[in-house]
Amino acid sequence: MSDLDTVLAFADRGLEESLVRLFALMRIKSISTDPVYAPECRRAGQWLVDELTALGFEATLRDTPGHPMVVAHHKGATANAPHVLFYGHYDVQPVDPLAEWQAAPFEPALKEVAPGRQVITGRGSSDDKGQLMTFVEACRAYKSADGALPCRVTILFEGEEESGSPSLKPFLEANAAELKAGCALVCDTNMWDADTPAISAGLRGLVGEEVTIKAADRDLHSGYFGGAAANPVHILAKILAGLHDETGHVTLPGFYEGVEETPSHVLASWDTLGRTAESFLGEIGLSIPAGETGRSVLELTWARPTAEVNGIIGGYTGDGFKTVIAAQASAKVSFRLVGKQDPAAIRATFRAYVEAAIPADCSVTFKPHGGSRAIQLPYDSPVLTTARRALSDEWPKPAVMIGMGGSIPIVGDFQTLLGMQSLLVGFGLADDRIHSPNEKYELRSFHKGIRSWIRILDALAA
Amino acid sequence: MSDLDTVLAFADRGLEESLVRLFALMRIKSISTDPVYAPECRRAGQWLVDELTALGFEATLRDTPGHPMVVAHHKGATANAPHVLFYGHYDVQPVDPLAEWQAAPFEPALKEVAPGRQVITGRGSSDDKGQLMTFVEACRAYKSADGALPCRVTILFEGEEESGSPSLKPFLEANAAELKAGCALVCDTNMWDADTPAISAGLRGLVGEEVTIKAADRDLHSGYFGGAAANPVHILAKILAGLHDETGHVTLPGFYEGVEETPSHVLASWDTLGRTAESFLGEIGLSIPAGETGRSVLELTWARPTAEVNGIIGGYTGDGFKTVIAAQASAKVSFRLVGKQDPAAIRATFRAYVEAAIPADCSVTFKPHGGSRAIQLPYDSPVLTTARRALSDEWPKPAVMIGMGGSIPIVGDFQTLLGMQSLLVGFGLADDRIHSPNEKYELRSFHKGIRSWIRILDALAA
Repeated sequence: MSDLDTVLAFADRGLEESLVRLFALMRIKSISTDPVYAPECRRAGQWLVDELTALGFEATLRDTPGHPMVVAHHKGATANAPHVLFYGHYDVQPVDPLAEWQAAPFEPALKEVAPGRQVITGRGSSDDKGQLMTFVEACRAYKSADGALPCRVTILFEGEEESGSPSLKPFLEANAAELKAGCALVCDTNMWDADTPAISAGLRGLVGEEVTIKAADRDLHSGYFGGAAANPVHILAKILAGLHDETGHVTLPGFYEGVEETPSHVLASWDTLGRTAESFLGEIGLSIPAGETGRSVLELTWARPTAEVNGIIGGYTGDGFKTVIAAQASAKVSFRLVGKQDPAAIRATFRAYVEAAIPADCSVTFKPHGGSRAIQLPYDSPVLTTARRALSDEWPKPAVMIGMGGSIPIVGDFQTLLGMQSLLVGFGLADDRIHSPNEKYELRSFHKGIRSWIRILDALAA
Repeated sequence: MSDLDTVLAFADRGLEESLVRLFALMRIKSISTDPVYAPECRRAGQWLVDELTALGFEATLRDTPGHPMVVAHHKGATANAPHVLFYGHYDVQPVDPLAEWQAAPFEPALKEVAPGRQVITGRGSSDDKGQLMTFVEACRAYKSADGALPCRVTILFEGEEESGSPSLKPFLEANAAELKAGCALVCDTNMWDADTPAISAGLRGLVGEEVTIKAADRDLHSGYFGGAAANPVHILAKILAGLHDETGHVTLPGFYEGVEETPSHVLASWDTLGRTAESFLGEIGLSIPAGETGRSVLELTWARPTAEVNGIIGGYTGDGFKTVIAAQASAKVSFRLVGKQDPAAIRATFRAYVEAAIPADCSVTFKPHGGSRAIQLPYDSPVLTTARRALSDEWPKPAVMIGMGGSIPIVGDFQTLLGMQSLLVGFGLADDRIHSPNEKYELRSFHKGIRSWIRILDALAA
């Protein structure tokens, strides 16, 4: 086998042709939400099948009730080579409002935005065609240099990520044996900043609950009944206000079971990232962290569980005033979970807490809205340590392990349905304007992204 | 002057003709909300002017920007006779849905609903043509018997009560000197039950406030920001939950200033009325009094102040779930006032309480919605005592002094603009179906109502 530098040199020399291929893929208008573009989605999938076949993958286009999946397999250089599943999506967001684009969204181009800084412009440049092609082109560099891949590689590209992935779960279930690998590589995330690669080591889980409290059997006149009749808005307000104590802790009994403190070296590394309360909250017009006291905004949003009211409604909410006591009031409440918090247990505890607060002549109903555990790679897991080192070798600054406050459903599905952890690495930047007009991807992200995957595959195989 | 019994006998003998006149008034389709019926409204007003003129009143129809007012004056039997202003309204509610009427709404009739029990059927029979005619016919009986009225009487009939009385306040202001009397008699209320006349001695006041709390400058993703960004629904819930303590007391500092305990003999009389928590709340599907502990439902709704949330909204309230942290949340809050509670002071205290609960990086705006003091006749005031005795002489059971949880704007206007207290006496029953199809008025209410006013005028003049 060639050494790493040889493979990287192949990637560097092939960059221009890599761009030609990316542009070809970007020209295909694979907008998944609009049925008009269904043939274009299929064409994008087929384009990838053809490319991967040419690279020596055993690649197929698989029909689903929606847009087709691309599944491709390549054996590793050795029988013991680790097996990775790479996930990406070939579909893109719609391009409205078209008038706001400075160039046609499906005519990709290179644009120099500052001396020495070029960006790839067009829909899908960052989300996710540019990102997924970093991996395909990394494989190509290996094949060109070695005629082989250091790892056994399975590729899964879907065409419905921008329209809710309706076919993904059934497809994973039906093809679990074929798709299961040692770990998944998910390339749909961002760098920390232009010089600092990031690995998302944790994703918070979620429990959603809709609570409806019913009091009188009709809306009441607050003059006639006020002072004697139960007001469901009052009951709801007490319940919601009681969810947090004065220090921002969630008060539900046992809520923090399974929550572990983040290792101090991880917290220390987060402190070096420079995301302060001012910088993080300042962008949205706020300045004071509102959650648990004594923790940084990064810890609060990446590594701590929350209880949030996402919506509330009751009584008269139109213009002017109506002196009504509502018959019912409701709220949508969600809990972000970390560590090993159990969604089912938290749902049950929340319901018990609410039920205990309902007067005997009132009633409550619950409607569940999703429940998923947190995803947390052990900060010292081998795959994470390996990828971190490989990324740090490539970029000016060492890779950071970050968290994500939200969830990426595919990661949970890989864990649940395929029993497989995911390594989330991506080279997008916060200003890539994904889902918006004038989407771009840094040429440097594309180039160093390819090189990063070469290093990661090399390191994983070592 | 004739003695009281003589006048009452005139009323009894004239009942049939009194009914003929009431029916004539009821046949006029004086629906004030529908411009199509504007000529009918004027016709009803003119009919009353003609009747009152024939009775010796100096009566005029007064134009307003809306429907005209009827103003009529009659001097008292003596120079020192007390001066009363009688208020009623000649307009009626629309009659939709017409199909639900068992008889044409503007073809009044007498109907025997049980042996010995007759009702007057038709729109306006109870609200308010039947009620106001009890007073007109009482005056007629006096004039027939005596040629004079024991009190100096001013009559004000408006034609916009069912459409918000837009012209009333300006009219009172412009004609204050002409309309001001010793007290007002307002005949737009109900008996306690068919045998028990009632005087409404208290009306609660009202302060309305709309509170909007703003946090971030846009709706946020609760995954990305949850745990660090202020959630205005949480802030609002804490504020609203904090308005009451565990005993149902309103916690605002100084809230109970000006609230007096109801005299024990009044409370005792209310206890005899048989309106229990079960009977009062049972009708609306509730059973447990929700306000201040240790007080009856009548005291809670008639004589105690409240804080009620009438509406609340924030975040995502549609179908399904959105993990959003709202940029703002708002609530409509009202306070029912009793005794001498000061609406301005309570508004200011509430605002200060809310402002103190707003984090430094969030903001709050307030929108006032009305403010009126409670109306409370002293339970031992001469007019109340006099009227109570007169009513008790007429009906099988003694008159009760009740409260009203809501407000009647005219009463506040009389107090504020004319410096005059109101005696609220009416002979409607709870099942009169005012504002609904098949409105009725008990013949007994009409007959004994006339007799009641004769007795009240007699007693006031004594």
